[in-house]
Amino acid sequence: MTEFELIARYFSRPDVAGTAIVGNGDDCAVIAPSPGNAFAVTTDTLVEGRHFLPTIDPYKLGRRVVHVNLSDLAAMGAKPRYALLSLTLPQIDEAWIAKFSEGLWVALDQFGVELIGGNTTRGPLAIALTAMGEVPPGEALLRSGAKAGDELWVSGALGDAGWGLYGLLEAEAKGAVAQIKARPDQIGKYECPEARVALGLALRGIATSCIDISDGLLSEAQHLATRSNVAIEINIEAIPSGLTHLSRENIWGLAATMSMEDDSERIWTKALDHIGQHCLLATGDAYELLFTAPLAQHEVVAELLRAQALDGACIGRVIASDSAAKVRVLDAQSRPMDIEIKGWDHFA
Amino acid sequence: MTEFELIARYFSRPDVAGTAIVGNGDDCAVIAPSPGNAFAVTTDTLVEGRHFLPTIDPYKLGRRVVHVNLSDLAAMGAKPRYALLSLTLPQIDEAWIAKFSEGLWVALDQFGVELIGGNTTRGPLAIALTAMGEVPPGEALLRSGAKAGDELWVSGALGDAGWGLYGLLEAEAKGAVAQIKARPDQIGKYECPEARVALGLALRGIATSCIDISDGLLSEAQHLATRSNVAIEINIEAIPSGLTHLSRENIWGLAATMSMEDDSERIWTKALDHIGQHCLLATGDAYELLFTAPLAQHEVVAELLRAQALDGACIGRVIASDSAAKVRVLDAQSRPMDIEIKGWDHFA
Repeated sequence: MTEFELIARYFSRPDVAGTAIVGNGDDCAVIAPSPGNAFAVTTDTLVEGRHFLPTIDPYKLGRRVVHVNLSDLAAMGAKPRYALLSLTLPQIDEAWIAKFSEGLWVALDQFGVELIGGNTTRGPLAIALTAMGEVPPGEALLRSGAKAGDELWVSGALGDAGWGLYGLLEAEAKGAVAQIKARPDQIGKYECPEARVALGLALRGIATSCIDISDGLLSEAQHLATRSNVAIEINIEAIPSGLTHLSRENIWGLAATMSMEDDSERIWTKALDHIGQHCLLATGDAYELLFTAPLAQHEVVAELLRAQALDGACIGRVIASDSAAKVRVLDAQSRPMDIEIKGWDHFA
Repeated sequence: MTEFELIARYFSRPDVAGTAIVGNGDDCAVIAPSPGNAFAVTTDTLVEGRHFLPTIDPYKLGRRVVHVNLSDLAAMGAKPRYALLSLTLPQIDEAWIAKFSEGLWVALDQFGVELIGGNTTRGPLAIALTAMGEVPPGEALLRSGAKAGDELWVSGALGDAGWGLYGLLEAEAKGAVAQIKARPDQIGKYECPEARVALGLALRGIATSCIDISDGLLSEAQHLATRSNVAIEINIEAIPSGLTHLSRENIWGLAATMSMEDDSERIWTKALDHIGQHCLLATGDAYELLFTAPLAQHEVVAELLRAQALDGACIGRVIASDSAAKVRVLDAQSRPMDIEIKGWDHFA
C-alpha cells in the first residue's frame, strides 16, 4: 500500500459532503467560520512512550488523539469543526492503521468534526492533530477572567486517570507504584478521556475563566491564578475522585494485606497514600474542565453538571491576590497543606 | 531550563502586539480572517532522517520548516497570517534551540506570520507546523481549474535541490551517486527553499490551477491533470535548471575525468545523466510553483516572473484528456519520452 492509498482508504471520505470551502486533497483546505464566529485553534502531538504506552489499543489511540485536542476547544467554549492529522508511522501495518482510523473517525463523528487535511510520513510513531472550533470572539472562555469571590469548579472526578496509568505501569514499576492495582474503570479513564465539549459550550456567558486539566489540577489552577491575577483556594476533601475512597479503603487495604513488619506497613501505607494524593492533585490525563463562575451562578452550574450527568463539584474559591502562594490546598480542617505545585514538564 | 521557560524564551513574543483575538498562552488561539477572506490551512511534519539530515544547521532547519509550509499557502494564493508549532526534541540543547528559533523567526517575520500556539514534547526530533493564510474564497488557486489550451508554467529552476541533496549524501552514497559533486548554490537550493508567496498572491485571477513542487515535477503535474481532468505535455528542454547545464557539461565531464575503461565510462555517463534527469523530473524539495494559465495571459505571467526576478518559464501545455497517459514528457524533438511517473512515497 502506498502513502496515497493509505490516505485514500483510511483518512478520506470523498463521498461525504462537508462544510469546508475546499476540503482534503488540495495544497491547503479553505475554511471560514460561521457568521459572528472566530476560529479557536489548537495543536498537540502524542509521541509513543511519552503520551501513550506502546501497548495501547490503536482504536483507543485514535480516539484519544481527538479527545485530547478537543478538550482544548472545550476549555475555550468552542464548537469543534475541523481537524488536520499529521501521522508519523514506523511502517505501514494495515491492521494497526485500520483500527487507529476507526477510533479516530468514531471520535470525530461524535463531535461532527471534518478531517480536512494532514500528511503521513515515516518515522518514530507520533501523531499531531490540529483542531479548529468556532466561538463568537467575545464569548471565548479565557484563563484570565477569574474574579475574587468566584467559585472554583471541576467537571468530573480527578486522580483516577493517573492511578490508572500507574496501574498500567505496574509490571515495570518499582517500589510502592508496583503495588498499585487499578480498576478497569480507572484504566479506562486514562485510556479513553472524554472531551467536555458540551459543557464548554454551556459555560459560555457563565464561567469567568476555564482551562482543561491535562497536566494536573494544581498546575492548571496556577495558570488560572496567574493569568487572572488572583489567588485560589482548593478544599482537598471537596475534589470528586474515585481515589478518595481508594485512598481510604483500597490504599490502606492494599498495604494492610501485604505481609510485612509493622514498620514497613506504615511506610507502604504512607507511600501509597502519597501516590494517591499525587494522583489527585498533580497527575494529568484527566481532561476535565477546571473553571470559575460567580457565586450567584452556583445553582446554574450545579444544574448544568447534573443535566450532563457529570460528577463535577465546586472545589474551592477565588480570593484576591496577595503575596502568598497563588494556589493553596486546604485540608479537611481548612488548614493550608504543605504541597509543592508542579505540573508535568516533558523535560524535567 | 523547563518546558515553559523554553517556550517563553524562544517561542514567545509577549511584547509584540499581534492581530490574533487570543494569542499564545491560552488553551487555544482565537483568530478570524479579514472581512471577505477565508482561511487556507496546511500542516506538515519534518522528521529527522526523512526530511532533513541530522547534520543540518538548526538555523536553516527553523527557516526550512516555515518555508516548506508557506509554500502550500503560496500554492493556494493565500497570504500567510498565523502558525502553530509542535516541537518534539530528544533533549533540551539550548544552543541548538536558540539557532533553530532564530531561523524560525527570521522566516516568520519575512512573511509577517504570527506564532499563535503549539507545544513542545520529548521524543525523536520532529517538527510539525500548521500554517494559516487568508484568501477570498472564490480566488483560491486550486488544482482543479486547468483547461485545454492553457500553458503550464514553473516559477523557477528545478533539479538543483535534488542534486544538492545527492551531493550532501555523497559521503554515504554508493555507485554513481557517490560521484556527484554539488555546487554550494545547489546545496543552498535544497537546504534553504524559498516559498513563492508573492507569486502566489500575484497569480490570483490569472492562474487556472496551481500546486507547489514538493515531491517532484511529474507527480505534481499528474495531480493537476487528474484533478482538472485534462492531460499535460511537458517539454523537457524548456524546464529551467542549473542541472541542464550540469547534465551537458558537469555530468559528462565528471564521468570523463574518471579514469576508467571506455565501457565503464559510458555506463557512468549514462548513470549520471539518468540521475540528472531524475533530479529534474522526479526529485522534490524544489518548492517552486507549478501552475497553468490561459495562453492569452502569457505576457502577463512572463512579466510577473521578471518583476519578481524569478527564473521561471513556460514548460508545456494543457490538452484535452484522452485515454493515454495524463502527463507526457517530450524530448527536444517533441517525441514522447518513456518515463515512469512516480512521486515521493514515504513508505515505498
